[in-house]
Amino acid sequence: MGINIGILGYGNLGRGVELAVAQNPDMNLSAVLTRPGHSGINILTGGVGVYSFTEADCLADRIDVLILCGSSAADLPELSPQMALMFNIVDSFDNRAKISEHFARVDDAAKKGGKIGVISAGWAPGLFSVNRVYANAVLESGRDYVFWGRGVSQGHSDAVRRIGGVLDAKQYTVPVESTLDAIRNGEAPKLSATQMHRRECFVVAAQDADRERIENEIKIMPNFFEGYDTTVHFITQEEMDRNHRGIPHGGYVFRSGKTGSQNENRQVIEYSLRLGSNPEFTACVLVACARAAYKMNKSGQTGCRTMLDIPPAYLLPMSDEELREKML
Amino acid sequence: MGINIGILGYGNLGRGVELAVAQNPDMNLSAVLTRPGHSGINILTGGVGVYSFTEADCLADRIDVLILCGSSAADLPELSPQMALMFNIVDSFDNRAKISEHFARVDDAAKKGGKIGVISAGWAPGLFSVNRVYANAVLESGRDYVFWGRGVSQGHSDAVRRIGGVLDAKQYTVPVESTLDAIRNGEAPKLSATQMHRRECFVVAAQDADRERIENEIKIMPNFFEGYDTTVHFITQEEMDRNHRGIPHGGYVFRSGKTGSQNENRQVIEYSLRLGSNPEFTACVLVACARAAYKMNKSGQTGCRTMLDIPPAYLLPMSDEELREKML
Repeated sequence: MGINIGILGYGNLGRGVELAVAQNPDMNLSAVLTRPGHSGINILTGGVGVYSFTEADCLADRIDVLILCGSSAADLPELSPQMALMFNIVDSFDNRAKISEHFARVDDAAKKGGKIGVISAGWAPGLFSVNRVYANAVLESGRDYVFWGRGVSQGHSDAVRRIGGVLDAKQYTVPVESTLDAIRNGEAPKLSATQMHRRECFVVAAQDADRERIENEIKIMPNFFEGYDTTVHFITQEEMDRNHRGIPHGGYVFRSGKTGSQNENRQVIEYSLRLGSNPEFTACVLVACARAAYKMNKSGQTGCRTMLDIPPAYLLPMSDEELREKML
Repeated sequence: MGINIGILGYGNLGRGVELAVAQNPDMNLSAVLTRPGHSGINILTGGVGVYSFTEADCLADRIDVLILCGSSAADLPELSPQMALMFNIVDSFDNRAKISEHFARVDDAAKKGGKIGVISAGWAPGLFSVNRVYANAVLESGRDYVFWGRGVSQGHSDAVRRIGGVLDAKQYTVPVESTLDAIRNGEAPKLSATQMHRRECFVVAAQDADRERIENEIKIMPNFFEGYDTTVHFITQEEMDRNHRGIPHGGYVFRSGKTGSQNENRQVIEYSLRLGSNPEFTACVLVACARAAYKMNKSGQTGCRTMLDIPPAYLLPMSDEELREKML
C-alpha cells in the first residue's frame, strides 16, 4: 500500500514535500504536523489530517517516515531526536559546525526507538557532499571547486535593501562562466572568491532617489560586493513582483585531477544543479531519503545516517534485480 | 600497513590500476597476475612479483583485494567467479545483457569463499549508473539523457579505415553543444541520435588518393555517418601519431524534471566527465571500489555487489566522523 509519510512543518519545504509525495506512486501523505495552535491551516492534499506535533505519539502507527521541515537553528536540534524515538525520520539539518553533535543525539534516540534517522539530507549538504565523496575517492590527487548559483542570496539582498532610497532588492550570485570553462578544460587554478562568482542586483529605487549613488554604494560595499564583478539593474516594483518571485538556485561541484606516470592526463568530474525551485528540489531529495530510511529500517537497521551512508540502491523503489537490469 | 592490491591482467587498464594504487597512500601493490607464460613482463613498480594466475591460490594471504583487468567477453565470465572463491575482487564487467548471470555466479563464489565481489565498476557502467539512480530517485517525473564523448569510437575509426585510399583514421564522437545547452536551459526534447552527437574524423590519405571522394564516402556511410554532422580533417601520419595517440573519453548524464503543483518548476541535474585517459580513470574507480570491498568484507559482509549497493562512505579512507566533518 505504499510508504506513509508524515510532514512536520508546513512552510516552503513542507509544501515541497507534500508535492513530491504526490509525484511518487509508492508513497502516501498520512499526516501534517505543525506547532500547537496552527492545526487549522489548509493543506493541498484532501483527506489528510493536520495535527499539533505534541500529538505525535498518537500517530506512531500511521506514519512510516516523518520528514522534518523545520529550521536547523530553531527546530531540528530538539525535534529530530525527540521524533526519532517514535518515527523513522529525515531532516535537512545544515548547521555544519553542529552536525556531529546532532548526529550523536539522533543516533542515540533512533537506536532507543528502533528507528532510522537520516540527517542533513538535501543538496548542500546532501547531493553535493555525495558527489564530492565519489570524486575524491576516484581522483586521489586533485582539487575541488564548489560554485553557487545562479541563485538568490538573502544576505546580499538584505544588504542592498538597507541602502538609502532602495525600496526593494534581490541579489543573484552567479558563477563566472569563463572560470567554469577553464576548469572544464583541465586547468586547476587557485581561485579567489571574486574570480568564482559575479553578482547581479535587481533594485527598485524610490522615485526621487539618485540611482548613480545607489549603484556606487552597492559596488563598493566591503565584504559583500567590493572586488566582485557586480551588475545593477533598476526595475519597477511590478517587474520585481512578476519576474523575481521564484526561488531558483543551484551550483557546481568539480574535481580536477591528474593521472599517469608523469601526471600527464587531466581528468575532470563535474556535477551541477539548475533548480527552478530550491525548496521543491530539496523536498524531492528528502522524500527519496525517506524511502531509503524506510527500507533500511525494514531490513533491521537502526540509528543515524547521512546520505554518505546510504547505498544508492536504497533510494529507488526497485528490486535489486530490476536496478541492475535497468539502471546499471 | 595499507590494503594489499593484486592486479590480474596487465594491459592499459591493469597499468592504470598500478598507477592509481601508487597515488593512494593507503594501498600497496603486492602482485601482478598474468596468463601462464607471460610472467616475464616488466612492470612499473619495483619489488613486486609477477605470477601466472594459475598460481593464485598461493597468494591468498598476500592480497586483500584482486582487481581483474581482463576482457568482459573473454576473461571475466570465468575468472571473476573463480577468483572470488579466494579473494575479494573488483571487476569492470560491462556486458549489460549478461550482468544478472555474472552477478549470480560471483555472488555464489564470493559467499562460498567468505569474500566480497564488486562487479561492473568503472564509469559506464559505474559512476554514470550511480548518478542516474540518484537523479531518478530525486526527480520522479522527468527524462534522462546520456551523451558520449568527446572520445574515440573504435568501430567508427575502423569503418573509415576500410575506405580505399585511407591509410589511418580516428573518429571522435562529440556531443552537440547546442543540444546540451537546450537541456541545461530546462527544455526536455525527444532527441534523435543525430541531434545528440556529431562526428569528427581525422584521416591520413594515400598521396594519390582523391580526398573529395574519401570525404564523401565517409559522410554518406549508412548507420555510421549518414545523417550526422560529420567533419573530415586530412592530416599527415606524423600529425596522427603526435596528436591522436591518447585515449580520451567522457560523457554527460542529465535528468531534466519538473516539480510544483502545476509542474511549473524545471529542475536539471547534470553529471559529466572529461577524461584525458579513459583506462586510467576507469582504473581509479576500480581502486576506490577495492577499498570499499576491503571495508565491507572487514565488517563481515560477503557476496556480490555493484556500485549501486556501496554506500559512498566506503569509498574513501576516512572514518565516519571524519567524513561527516570534512565531506558533508
